[in-house]
Amino acid sequence: MVIIMNADATAQNIKEVIEVIEKAGLQAKVMEGEQQKIVGVIGDKTRLAMVPFDAMDGVDTTVQISKSYKLVSREFHPKSSVIDIDGVKIGGGNFVVMAGPCAVESREQLLESAEIAKKGGAQFLRGGAYKPRTSPYSFQGLEEEGLKYLAEARECTGLKIVTEVTEVEAVDTVAAYADLLQVGARNMQNFRLLKEVGRANKPVMLKRGLAATLNEWLNAAEYIMNEGNQNVILCERGIRTYETYTRNTLDLSAVAAVKHLSHLPIVVDPSHGTGKWRMVKPMAFAAVACGADGLIMEMHPNPAKALSDGPQSLTPENYLELMAGVKKLYAFLQESGLAIDHL
Amino acid sequence: MVIIMNADATAQNIKEVIEVIEKAGLQAKVMEGEQQKIVGVIGDKTRLAMVPFDAMDGVDTTVQISKSYKLVSREFHPKSSVIDIDGVKIGGGNFVVMAGPCAVESREQLLESAEIAKKGGAQFLRGGAYKPRTSPYSFQGLEEEGLKYLAEARECTGLKIVTEVTEVEAVDTVAAYADLLQVGARNMQNFRLLKEVGRANKPVMLKRGLAATLNEWLNAAEYIMNEGNQNVILCERGIRTYETYTRNTLDLSAVAAVKHLSHLPIVVDPSHGTGKWRMVKPMAFAAVACGADGLIMEMHPNPAKALSDGPQSLTPENYLELMAGVKKLYAFLQESGLAIDHL
Amino acid sequence: MVIIMNADATAQNIKEVIEVIEKAGLQAKVMEGEQQKIVGVIGDKTRLAMVPFDAMDGVDTTVQISKSYKLVSREFHPKSSVIDIDGVKIGGGNFVVMAGPCAVESREQLLESAEIAKKGGAQFLRGGAYKPRTSPYSFQGLEEEGLKYLAEARECTGLKIVTEVTEVEAVDTVAAYADLLQVGARNMQNFRLLKEVGRANKPVMLKRGLAATLNEWLNAAEYIMNEGNQNVILCERGIRTYETYTRNTLDLSAVAAVKHLSHLPIVVDPSHGTGKWRMVKPMAFAAVACGADGLIMEMHPNPAKALSDGPQSLTPENYLELMAGVKKLYAFLQESGLAIDHL
Amino acid sequence: MVIIMNADATAQNIKEVIEVIEKAGLQAKVMEGEQQKIVGVIGDKTRLAMVPFDAMDGVDTTVQISKSYKLVSREFHPKSSVIDIDGVKIGGGNFVVMAGPCAVESREQLLESAEIAKKGGAQFLRGGAYKPRTSPYSFQGLEEEGLKYLAEARECTGLKIVTEVTEVEAVDTVAAYADLLQVGARNMQNFRLLKEVGRANKPVMLKRGLAATLNEWLNAAEYIMNEGNQNVILCERGIRTYETYTRNTLDLSAVAAVKHLSHLPIVVDPSHGTGKWRMVKPMAFAAVACGADGLIMEMHPNPAKALSDGPQSLTPENYLELMAGVKKLYAFLQESGLAIDHL
Repeated sequence: MVIIMNADATAQNIKEVIEVIEKAGLQAKVMEGEQQKIVGVIGDKTRLAMVPFDAMDGVDTTVQISKSYKLVSREFHPKSSVIDIDGVKIGGGNFVVMAGPCAVESREQLLESAEIAKKGGAQFLRGGAYKPRTSPYSFQGLEEEGLKYLAEARECTGLKIVTEVTEVEAVDTVAAYADLLQVGARNMQNFRLLKEVGRANKPVMLKRGLAATLNEWLNAAEYIMNEGNQNVILCERGIRTYETYTRNTLDLSAVAAVKHLSHLPIVVDPSHGTGKWRMVKPMAFAAVACGADGLIMEMHPNPAKALSDGPQSLTPENYLELMAGVKKLYAFLQESGLAIDHL
Repeated sequence: MVIIMNADATAQNIKEVIEVIEKAGLQAKVMEGEQQKIVGVIGDKTRLAMVPFDAMDGVDTTVQISKSYKLVSREFHPKSSVIDIDGVKIGGGNFVVMAGPCAVESREQLLESAEIAKKGGAQFLRGGAYKPRTSPYSFQGLEEEGLKYLAEARECTGLKIVTEVTEVEAVDTVAAYADLLQVGARNMQNFRLLKEVGRANKPVMLKRGLAATLNEWLNAAEYIMNEGNQNVILCERGIRTYETYTRNTLDLSAVAAVKHLSHLPIVVDPSHGTGKWRMVKPMAFAAVACGADGLIMEMHPNPAKALSDGPQSLTPENYLELMAGVKKLYAFLQESGLAIDHL
Repeated sequence: MVIIMNADATAQNIKEVIEVIEKAGLQAKVMEGEQQKIVGVIGDKTRLAMVPFDAMDGVDTTVQISKSYKLVSREFHPKSSVIDIDGVKIGGGNFVVMAGPCAVESREQLLESAEIAKKGGAQFLRGGAYKPRTSPYSFQGLEEEGLKYLAEARECTGLKIVTEVTEVEAVDTVAAYADLLQVGARNMQNFRLLKEVGRANKPVMLKRGLAATLNEWLNAAEYIMNEGNQNVILCERGIRTYETYTRNTLDLSAVAAVKHLSHLPIVVDPSHGTGKWRMVKPMAFAAVACGADGLIMEMHPNPAKALSDGPQSLTPENYLELMAGVKKLYAFLQESGLAIDHL
Repeated sequence: MVIIMNADATAQNIKEVIEVIEKAGLQAKVMEGEQQKIVGVIGDKTRLAMVPFDAMDGVDTTVQISKSYKLVSREFHPKSSVIDIDGVKIGGGNFVVMAGPCAVESREQLLESAEIAKKGGAQFLRGGAYKPRTSPYSFQGLEEEGLKYLAEARECTGLKIVTEVTEVEAVDTVAAYADLLQVGARNMQNFRLLKEVGRANKPVMLKRGLAATLNEWLNAAEYIMNEGNQNVILCERGIRTYETYTRNTLDLSAVAAVKHLSHLPIVVDPSHGTGKWRMVKPMAFAAVACGADGLIMEMHPNPAKALSDGPQSLTPENYLELMAGVKKLYAFLQESGLAIDHL
C-alpha cells in the first residue's frame, strides 16, 4: 500500500500515519518529493485493510497494490485448474458446452431440448428451475418439479446438469439433482449464498455480476473457495453499459484477463451476453478463439413459444450448425498450436 | 404492447402474430405503413408477458408500453405515502435523518455515535451489524452482538434503529431489534430476501442496486409490497458509472423520477453516493432541495479509526454543522412553498 | 509518480527503470517490501509523461500522483475566480441564469423567448445557431442568420448572448455576435477548437463531454487557459450511463468536485441533464443548493412546436415559476450563510 | 413512429396530435386500448423528425421505428461493400491488417516499424502525426514532418498509409500523404470534420466514439457518405464502461451488429480496445473469428521507449507471432466455410 500525502501535509500528519502503520507491526518508508510526500507500507497489508487512511489529516489518497484474493489467483496457483465433474473435465485444454432452454417449462420441452443438446455435442444440459425475474408477476420457474425433469433428462441422455440456485434454502435441494450449481449474475455478491455453495459438495459456476468489476468477481470466487470448495468455474455473461442495442455488452477481454489473473476455468454465455440469437454464433466463435474453456447457450425446441428469453434462444437448426462450427474451430486451434491458455 | 414487423414481413408472419395475441384472449390491431407494419395489442398485456414475439418470423422488435409494477405506482395511488414508524413519519412532507457509523464496531463507539446523532437531530441511528464486503478477508460485522448494542443505543437515546439485513435467515433476528429493515444495494435483486422482508412485520428501506435501472428498482419494491408489506422506503445511494473520482455517481434525478412514478418516500445517501466526506454536505443540501424525504449519512466519532468507510464518514463537528444547515434549509422550503413533493 | 514492480521483477529490471528516471534528470527512490518493490520518482514528472514504464520488463503498473492540469487547479489559484462579462459576473458568489430555446428557429421565436427570459430574471439568452445533430438529416441551425437574431435580441432586452461554436472556422463569426462562446459536449475533446477559443477574445463556457471524466474535463479547460484565455466557465450537463429513463444522468457531485479541485465557476444544465421538462425544477433547485454558480436552461414560447429538444423545454409559465423559486432559494442560502463555495 | 398517449389523455389531446401529423401530409391511425391509446404515423417520418410530440399535452412517449441512416444501412445495400484502396481490398471476404506505432516519433523509428509491419504481412502502416492528447502538456505529434516519414515508409515498403486527421484545416494535407484517413474516437461527432472528409477524395476509417451507441456511430458514417464519399470503413476500438482493469471495454458484439445493420466493412483495434499488449493476441483472434474485416494494432520496435501508448504496443516478436496466427486462423475460417460475413 502506498499513501500519498497532500502537498500541504505537515510533519505531524506524516508522523500520525507512520504511527498507525507501525502499530500494526508493519514498516513505513517515507519518500519526500518536491511537491508531495509518499508513505509506503511494507509487510502484510491485510492487517491495514480496515484503516481509513483517506480520512486522516494530510492524506490525499491511498493506492492498493496487493490483490485482495489469493486462492483464486494465478500467482498462488500458476497452473490452469482442471475441474473434473464426474468425468467431464473443464479447463486446461478441456472445452465444454452447456446448452438448453432458459427455463424448464415442461417435461416434454426439457426432454426434447436434452435430445437436441446431446445431438449437437454438448456435455451439459442447462435449464432454470428457479427463475429470478425483474417483475414479481413474471414466470418464476417450476422449482423442484423442474429439477426432477432435469434429473430425468440426465438419465435419458447422459448429459450433466447445470442449473441455478437462487437462495440458501434451496442449495441442498438443487445440489441433490444438479451436477454443477450456477450462481447467477444478480447473486454474485449475495455473500451468504456464496458461502453456502462454498460448503456444498458440488462444483459451482459463478456468473459475473451485471456491473461487477473483474476484481469484485474474483473476490466473489474467493468467498466460495475460502469455504473449501475448489471447484469453481467463472462465467462471463455480459456487463451493463450505456449501449442498448444489445441486452448486455459481452466483455470477451474478461476471458483474457481471467487467464492472466486466475487459474480458474472460464466459460462464456453469448446468449445473455447479447440478447439476440443472431449474435450467438459470432460471439461463440470469438469466445473459442480467445481462449474460453467453454460455452453456455440458450437453445429451445421452439423459441417463439419459450416462456422466457425467446429472442436470444437458438433454434435446434441454428444450434446444430453452430456446434459443428465450434467443434471444428476448437480442434483447429488445438492442432495448430494457436489455442490460448495461460497469458 | 406494440409489435413492429420487419420491412419484409409476409402476410403469413403477421397472421401468426395475430393468432398468438388472439389465443391469449386479446385483440390485435394492424397498422400498415409504407415501409413497415405495426401490430398493436389491446387488453391485459400481462397475459402476453412471456411470449417472445421478437423470436417470431417477421418481427423486428416489440415495445412495452404498460409499466410492470402496480402497487408501487403513483397512478395506482396518487397521494404520497406517509410511512409511520412508531410515531416517526416519513414522506408527504415529513423529513427524517438517519445517521451513524457504517459498522457497529463496539458498544462504546455505538453509544457515542448515538449521542451525537441525537444531538444533531437525527430520528434514526444507523449502523451495520452484518456487513457485506467485497473481500472475504474484510471485517464482516459483529452480527447479533451488534444488534444488541443498537437496541441499547435506542434505549439510551430514544432514536429508532435502521440496520441492514443481508440474508433470509437473519430477517427474524434483525426484525426483533430494528425499527426499519434495510435491504442493501447488492441485494436489491435478491428476490428471496425481498419476499422475506415483504412478510416481516417491519418497514423496509430498499437501496437502489449498484447498476439498477429505475424500473428494476421499482419492480424490486413491488416484490416487497406484493407480499403485503406496504411500508417501503426507497433509498438512492449512487450508481456505478465510468467516473472514478467519486465512489459512485449520486443520481439525484432519481428523486424527481420517483416522485413522479411512485407514491413511496425516498431518502438519499450522500455518503455512499460520493465516497468522500467533503461532498456529503453539498449533496445533502441538494437532496433536500430537490424533494428527498430524508437523508441517511455516515458519521463516526473518529473517522480516521473507523473499521470501514472512514473516508466518507463525517466527523461529529461536520455532522452537527451539516444538520443545522439541513434543518434551516428544509424549514425554509416548507415555509416558502418551494418544497417539492408530487411531480 | 510511483512505479510498482512485479513480484518477480529482477534487480536488473529495477536498474533499468532507475536509469530511465535518472536520464530525465530526476531522482528515484526504491522501497523494498516483502512481496513487492516500488520505485518512487521525485522531481518534475512532466518530463516523464511520455515514458511507458508499464511496457518495461518487471513493471506491474504505474500510479500518477500529480495532476496534469495546473492553470485550472485550485492549488494553483486558491481563490474562486469571478468571470466578468461586460459587467455580468459569474462565480465567487455571483449567480447567473442563461435561458432560451435549444435552437434559434426564427426571429419571432427568438425575440419572444428573449422577452420571457428577461422577465424571469435571466442575465443571458441562450439559443443555438449551429446545431450538432446525430443525424445529418435533422435541422442543423440557421447559422449566421441565427446569430443576427441573437444580436437583435440583445439590443432589445439587454441580455447577454451565449451560443455554441461547433467549428474552428466559425469562431471569429460567433465571437463577433456572442458574449460567451459555448463549447458543446461533443466537442469537449476537439482540441483544435479548444485552442482556437483559447485564442479568442471572449469568455468560454466548456460543457462536460458525454462520457468525460472530471480529469479529462479539467484538462480540456487547461487547453483553453493554456492559450491565454483565463475566462473559462465549466458546465455540467449530465453524463452517459446505463439508465435510460433520463436522457443523461445529471452528475451534481461534479459541482462539489469542481469546487474542490478548481477555482473556475461551474453552471448546471438541468435540461440536457435530464431530458424531461418536469425534472428541470427539482434539479435546478438542487444545483443551487450544492453550490453551482449558475444555471442554463431550455425554455421555449411553445415547446410543443419546438424544432428540437421540445420535451425538455420549459413553458414560459414553468420558467417564470422556477425562476421565482431559484431567486428565493439563492437569496436564502446567501443570507443564512449556507451558500457553498470553496470545499 | 408510434405515439403513446397517457392513460388520462383527452379526446382533444388526441385530436391535436392527429392534426400535427396530418398537417405534415402524413396519415394517423388511432388504436384504442383499455388503458392506453396509441397513435401510429404512416408515411415519410423524416418530415416529423423535429416535432416534439413528447411535449404535447396527453403524450406519454414516442417510439421511433425507422432508422435515421440510409446510405449506411444494409437494407439499402444488401451486399457487403468492398473498399478498394489502390488495389488493397477491404470487406466482403478481404481481410487487412494495419500495424505500426501509436505516434510517428522519428524517421528511424518509423522506417524500422514499417519493415517489421511489412515482414509480418500487414498491408497498411499506421502511425499518428497529429496526436489528440488529454493533457495539453503531452507530446502532440510531429505533424507534417511525421506525414513525410509515413510517405517515405510507403516508398520503402509498398505499404499503404493510414493516419489520423484531427482537424478540418489538416484534411488536405493529410490526404496528400495518406491512403486512408482516420477519424478518431474523440472526433466521431465532430460533424464539421465528418463533412470535410466526406468531401475528400480518400477513403475514411471512422473509429467508434468513446461512449457512442451503434446508432450514433452509423449516423456519423452517414454524415460522411451523405457528402458523396462511399469509401467508409468502421473501426471498433473499445467503449468506456465502469471496468478499469482494461483501458476500454472492447465490444466485439459491435462487429456482429454492424454486419447485420450495415454493408460497410469493420476492423477492430485490440490495442486501444484493451490497453494491454498481453490482451492484443486473444482479442485479435476473437475479432477474426467473429467476422471482422481487419485489424489495426499498435506495434513498436521498442515499446518501452515509445512516446505514447507503450503499454499496449506489441514488440516486433509478439507482432510476428500474432500475425502468423491471424493468417492461419483467417485461412482456416475461409476454407472451412466458417467465415462470417452477412448476419
